[in-house]
Amino acid sequence: MTEELQRKGAAAKAAALKLVSVSTETKNKALLQIADALEQHAGWLIGENKKDLEQARQNGMKDAMIDRLTLTEERIGGIADGVRQVVGLKDPIGETVKEWTRPNGLVIAQKRVPMGVIAIIYESRPNVTVDAAALCLKTSNAVILRGGKEAIHSNVALMKVMQDAAYAAGIPEGSMDVIEDTARETATQLMRMKGYVDLLIPRGGAGLIRSVVENATVPVVETAAGNCHVYVDGDCDQQMALDIVMNAKVSRPSVCNAAETLLIDQRIAAEFLPKIVRALQEQHVEIRGCDACRAICPGLKPATEEDWYTEYNDYILAVKIVDGVDAAIAHINQYNTKHSEAIVTSNTEHAERFLNEVDAAAVYVNASTRFTDGFEFGFGAEIGISTQKMHARGPMGLEQLTSMKYVIHGTGQVR
Amino acid sequence: MTEELQRKGAAAKAAALKLVSVSTETKNKALLQIADALEQHAGWLIGENKKDLEQARQNGMKDAMIDRLTLTEERIGGIADGVRQVVGLKDPIGETVKEWTRPNGLVIAQKRVPMGVIAIIYESRPNVTVDAAALCLKTSNAVILRGGKEAIHSNVALMKVMQDAAYAAGIPEGSMDVIEDTARETATQLMRMKGYVDLLIPRGGAGLIRSVVENATVPVVETAAGNCHVYVDGDCDQQMALDIVMNAKVSRPSVCNAAETLLIDQRIAAEFLPKIVRALQEQHVEIRGCDACRAICPGLKPATEEDWYTEYNDYILAVKIVDGVDAAIAHINQYNTKHSEAIVTSNTEHAERFLNEVDAAAVYVNASTRFTDGFEFGFGAEIGISTQKMHARGPMGLEQLTSMKYVIHGTGQVR
Repeated sequence: MTEELQRKGAAAKAAALKLVSVSTETKNKALLQIADALEQHAGWLIGENKKDLEQARQNGMKDAMIDRLTLTEERIGGIADGVRQVVGLKDPIGETVKEWTRPNGLVIAQKRVPMGVIAIIYESRPNVTVDAAALCLKTSNAVILRGGKEAIHSNVALMKVMQDAAYAAGIPEGSMDVIEDTARETATQLMRMKGYVDLLIPRGGAGLIRSVVENATVPVVETAAGNCHVYVDGDCDQQMALDIVMNAKVSRPSVCNAAETLLIDQRIAAEFLPKIVRALQEQHVEIRGCDACRAICPGLKPATEEDWYTEYNDYILAVKIVDGVDAAIAHINQYNTKHSEAIVTSNTEHAERFLNEVDAAAVYVNASTRFTDGFEFGFGAEIGISTQKMHARGPMGLEQLTSMKYVIHGTGQVR
Repeated sequence: MTEELQRKGAAAKAAALKLVSVSTETKNKALLQIADALEQHAGWLIGENKKDLEQARQNGMKDAMIDRLTLTEERIGGIADGVRQVVGLKDPIGETVKEWTRPNGLVIAQKRVPMGVIAIIYESRPNVTVDAAALCLKTSNAVILRGGKEAIHSNVALMKVMQDAAYAAGIPEGSMDVIEDTARETATQLMRMKGYVDLLIPRGGAGLIRSVVENATVPVVETAAGNCHVYVDGDCDQQMALDIVMNAKVSRPSVCNAAETLLIDQRIAAEFLPKIVRALQEQHVEIRGCDACRAICPGLKPATEEDWYTEYNDYILAVKIVDGVDAAIAHINQYNTKHSEAIVTSNTEHAERFLNEVDAAAVYVNASTRFTDGFEFGFGAEIGISTQKMHARGPMGLEQLTSMKYVIHGTGQVR
């Protein structure tokens, strides 16, 4: 463990024990002061961000990536408003989830408590630095952030502004920090800080997730990979199906809740496939079809076995004709990443079978997979979308950043 | 991965997808048939168990361990009754935990679903084989069990009886199995069966837990280690304190919820320490005291720094005199394993501070730490006691073997 990790880890651990006793009022005051401070220091933040942008241009970073990295006065205002919205969210800490009395008179209450120290490893967007710190603060968690090296000047500057504002408002020092050493080895060491880190959330591509799975010794929530499907059933409103498929594929192809494979019931394939192919091609979507698809639309590129596994995150869609809802369920359970799956159907029995038997964080009937999102679900926040089954599944809001504690009141009971 | 792991893992994964649709009625019928079959085959089971016992004696296993390994007709009856009790527990699968409607008309329900495939690595007690299989079956999880080699004949035999009974009752084949290869490497491979295992629960000593932390690539719930404390506050009913300390230490010293360190407020140490020392020594408990303790009771063995970290699981207790509740909280948060901690006090403010600031799965005021147990909590079952903060904390009953799924009904919504 590097000196920086050890020092910041120990500070976070000590701060976490104090954060338990910080009131909602103090946390909200700190959040408001963070938001104001970000806007007040916008000029300096933009200057620090420029250092990252210059480096990025020298390294030949793509324009789309540079855009995501860029801070402007308007964007900083947006980030600050995001922090202000967290003030309005209900503080989950201290909530009594259940309470019961045992025959021996013990009163057992299950209460919501912070996780302790949360570590987040993420890639280049600097807004994540602020979002994550705000959500962890609201849930009384200490946080150690390890962003990508492309955004290091921006992240360090944003953290400096947040720390000054938060600590002045009464938040314990050490409650939030970024790791400044962006060597890959530092990320690996952070994954192994057993005894310091209570929860690690990786936010990034397949390479990061793989590295976490291989290396982490601390508890992890896996996020992100989304090989999502839309199944168009034989019994359905085809216009609705068309709208949902188009939305799931093209409204934002780069995100994890976008559709990657379309499954069509063979009963309507001859009618529906040409319609959806035309609509997709108008939007410049490349289609990779199964043999049965290509028998109907001979111009389609053939899909290979690998296509069924692929999360394109791009204007590409794999299409397969299947023999009804059971075949659709079987295909999805074989190839999906357990993120979001949709059926379009007017048949209640097919819908129920799909919703029950498809193994995924979110299953939809007659709606786009694009709704799997903390804000769309009404959580008012999102720190990631879990694709594992343990602890948190689907969009993670404030509650998913908490743990539980049993608080037991007795009158001298012994066993 | 060995051929056996691969085959049984694939079978469990396939069974898990089918188990989702198995009714509570079928599961309960299977549990009752398992219970009956265990009793009917008691003779054969005892015969298989004898093979393990002979081996154990040849290997010089201690009598206490041999006793834990032994199956008798009466014990098999007890194990079968345990399975029958699981029938009476509420099936958590399918429960709608929350449901709400979004402004766009989407109806989002959060439903309780199985984890999928649960793997359990445990040591020599054969009753765990049956308990774990029954709890996983009730929660529609497929289970892969990997018990200790000392109990391999017993475990294989118990599993055979359970499989025959369960599969005849309509449970999908592959839903439960034991790994027959007891090589250490097989356990390590099981910890790395990413894509097959949704949750791994290790039940065993510190060596097993360490191995899991180092090697596991699948999600894990850590269990067991319990360095539990009782703090006797200056404001308290000293007779109550005496009863609670004695119960927490001597009622069953080998278990994880037994007390390992006693903290005494200096305000009452001169009066309370001699009383508790006398009572403990009458029960043959070795006491290791801090310097202040030894100033009051000069005959005590001195406690070293290592004692504060040690889970003795034996008739040994470390004792330290502290300067009030804050010092007690600080000591506990430095040395505990976040299992169970108790304060004995009549001072409400001290109680609240302790309950709020001590970081542990269960915190008690005026009751013994020995109550941290699924049955004592009223869960009707227990598969282990989690000492991590993620997913499950404290005694794990049926609910802790489940995950969630968002089920969303739409009418054509797109984003």
